[in-house]
Amino acid sequence: MSADASRLPHELPLGRLEAFSDGVFAIAITLLVLELGVEEGAGAHLLHALLHEWPAYLAYFTSFLTIGVIWLQHSAITGALRTADGTLYRLNLLVLLLVGLLPFPTRLLSEFIGERDPERVAAVVYGLTLLALALALTAFVRYAAEHRRLVKDEVEADAVEAALLHSPSLVLYGIGILVSLLLPTVGVALYLASAVYRGLPARTVHRLLWRR
Amino acid sequence: MSADASRLPHELPLGRLEAFSDGVFAIAITLLVLELGVEEGAGAHLLHALLHEWPAYLAYFTSFLTIGVIWLQHSAITGALRTADGTLYRLNLLVLLLVGLLPFPTRLLSEFIGERDPERVAAVVYGLTLLALALALTAFVRYAAEHRRLVKDEVEADAVEAALLHSPSLVLYGIGILVSLLLPTVGVALYLASAVYRGLPARTVHRLLWRR
Amino acid sequence: MSADASRLPHELPLGRLEAFSDGVFAIAITLLVLELGVEEGAGAHLLHALLHEWPAYLAYFTSFLTIGVIWLQHSAITGALRTADGTLYRLNLLVLLLVGLLPFPTRLLSEFIGERDPERVAAVVYGLTLLALALALTAFVRYAAEHRRLVKDEVEADAVEAALLHSPSLVLYGIGILVSLLLPTVGVALYLASAVYRGLPARTVHRLLWRR
Amino acid sequence: MSADASRLPHELPLGRLEAFSDGVFAIAITLLVLELGVEEGAGAHLLHALLHEWPAYLAYFTSFLTIGVIWLQHSAITGALRTADGTLYRLNLLVLLLVGLLPFPTRLLSEFIGERDPERVAAVVYGLTLLALALALTAFVRYAAEHRRLVKDEVEADAVEAALLHSPSLVLYGIGILVSLLLPTVGVALYLASAVYRGLPARTVHRLLWRR
Repeated sequence: MSADASRLPHELPLGRLEAFSDGVFAIAITLLVLELGVEEGAGAHLLHALLHEWPAYLAYFTSFLTIGVIWLQHSAITGALRTADGTLYRLNLLVLLLVGLLPFPTRLLSEFIGERDPERVAAVVYGLTLLALALALTAFVRYAAEHRRLVKDEVEADAVEAALLHSPSLVLYGIGILVSLLLPTVGVALYLASAVYRGLPARTVHRLLWRR
Repeated sequence: MSADASRLPHELPLGRLEAFSDGVFAIAITLLVLELGVEEGAGAHLLHALLHEWPAYLAYFTSFLTIGVIWLQHSAITGALRTADGTLYRLNLLVLLLVGLLPFPTRLLSEFIGERDPERVAAVVYGLTLLALALALTAFVRYAAEHRRLVKDEVEADAVEAALLHSPSLVLYGIGILVSLLLPTVGVALYLASAVYRGLPARTVHRLLWRR
Repeated sequence: MSADASRLPHELPLGRLEAFSDGVFAIAITLLVLELGVEEGAGAHLLHALLHEWPAYLAYFTSFLTIGVIWLQHSAITGALRTADGTLYRLNLLVLLLVGLLPFPTRLLSEFIGERDPERVAAVVYGLTLLALALALTAFVRYAAEHRRLVKDEVEADAVEAALLHSPSLVLYGIGILVSLLLPTVGVALYLASAVYRGLPARTVHRLLWRR
Repeated sequence: MSADASRLPHELPLGRLEAFSDGVFAIAITLLVLELGVEEGAGAHLLHALLHEWPAYLAYFTSFLTIGVIWLQHSAITGALRTADGTLYRLNLLVLLLVGLLPFPTRLLSEFIGERDPERVAAVVYGLTLLALALALTAFVRYAAEHRRLVKDEVEADAVEAALLHSPSLVLYGIGILVSLLLPTVGVALYLASAVYRGLPARTVHRLLWRR
């Protein structure tokens, strides 16, 4: 056993997984602003030019909220963990790969909304990225929940999986993608609604929906 | 109660809120430099071209100082907290949404100062962003101050709210926006003055103003 | 001795080396997305234009995985350390210099794959950067392993060096570079394979190869 | 006294100053890579085009090393501190303002080396930024050294100031700027030499110079 302990530990520090993830989340969410701007020579009618860029703001807001909410869930999950291992690190890298990729479909969306055919492609690509991200996050959570030794003693493993209930709804994204094929702007509205819904505190949502 | 404790905690780690915020603040403040540059073919008269870009430096400095001061206040506030919860996370995301957005109106400002009509639009948009940021920060502080369990035992809740006195003056930004409608450069000077004023230590300000 | 202790410590905090490295790794891995995009006026055939950009996705994925795996190894190594010193800081800066540089050859690769001559240059430059990075990481690990006082008491120094076995294979990169001179795309495939191989958990690799 | 303790603390957390600084340093050092690239249509003679970009690599390396060394000194200094206050936060913001600015003169340098007149302007602007950065770092160190309560008990205040001996030599930068007025490339070589000199461990420098 002491021979075991002398090897590089199988357990990897949770702190660095969190720090690195915070970095990638923070950068991806802040890079989104680079997509905002007005066309050359917009000076003459700047206000008009700014209003004309509404798809870019919509895409910015949707992606910002999506990344923000996923970061929030990521924090809640790692906050319930005690330690990490190599596989969790790798699943986390997969989540970050897709978080880091999101500015690209965001750019497509903000550039092509309003142009009939490309708008459809952009909305579907955007939805596929969200779906892949939701799948990666689900794998991350499930792996943690199934490996009791990663979870803090005082947390029940079901609680970690229960977090999935609030986590990105795979079904919703599937529907969003299908809708985007026919009505791209409605599809994007669905993605946004999903982020807003998850962005609201669970109790607030509950109160709004049931205690009317 | 132990059933309660077994759920994902309602309290979320303050450390990650701070780390993620530090990331977004640091990136937004550093991205500002990407707006600096000289026009193509400026080589022949580089010194002249550099001096000609003064609005860009002014905008860089104003935004840098504004973000820096808000980060300073954010640090002081979270330093008085014991823990965080989901709502504080969400209010923090709102603050970060606007911090992350600031490079965009900064770009507008640095591009259009000196061009009569667009300058006005840019200065107003810039001021509106600052106002929204101040409102978000106020909501963040007020929520913390009103939830005693988030605050460290040794800190009085009033002290957290008192921090608002030094915090971005909503009135000042309101005035800045109105002034910008008529005299855009004066409006920008007001935004800058506000950041400089808050950037100076409170005691220094006091000494400069009263102990002359 | 107390005079010694009063100087700025020879030991430098490991925490900041980790935090700064996490920052550079996170930024380099996230900046890669800025290279993705479609050409001007691609709107008419967006799907086609997107598919046409496959070299950019390949380069993105290869670089993302490479940086991710190196970060993973970096974490495992610093997790076995107790403290750092000035030389380790400097060797770490060398690693980060090359990590921060990687987006540049990535951009070359994604731009020139498919163009006969430049493709060769881009693949060789990319491989040389990977080789230099592997050498820097090896120097970093070896220095730590040879300075017992930097390593945690409970970790055997051999264990730190053993980590090199899983670390970037210098030989493989050498072969990749030579192959790139003749068959650039095969060379790139080798770089990717190396990252994928190291990206899989050691046990998974073992099972796939030997327990068939 | 308890009334005092109930206010927002005059002491600000050192940890966040370090985390935010690490962020800005890491981003500034990594953004430098965005300046690297080859001109449009360079494909035909990519190797030649790459070699032709040597000023960009020189500027990248000089700025990377400069930021890296300043980060190293910053780490050593904050490692000797116990806590921070508002003024130290503000002096730190000044250091970060100039660190965040450095990519701009770096860009000027990499663009204009080799073009006679602009090269001189670029080299002087670059030197002035380094000088301002060195002055800001000096103010940061001196403030810490003069406020005993910020320094760890086990560290002598002189030790903190002694760190300045290894810190950016103001005189050297002054000379570099003057030389740049006449011989810009020699001036840049001086800036680089200064970073390399400080980048080497003090003991190595000592051995190289005296124990020959």
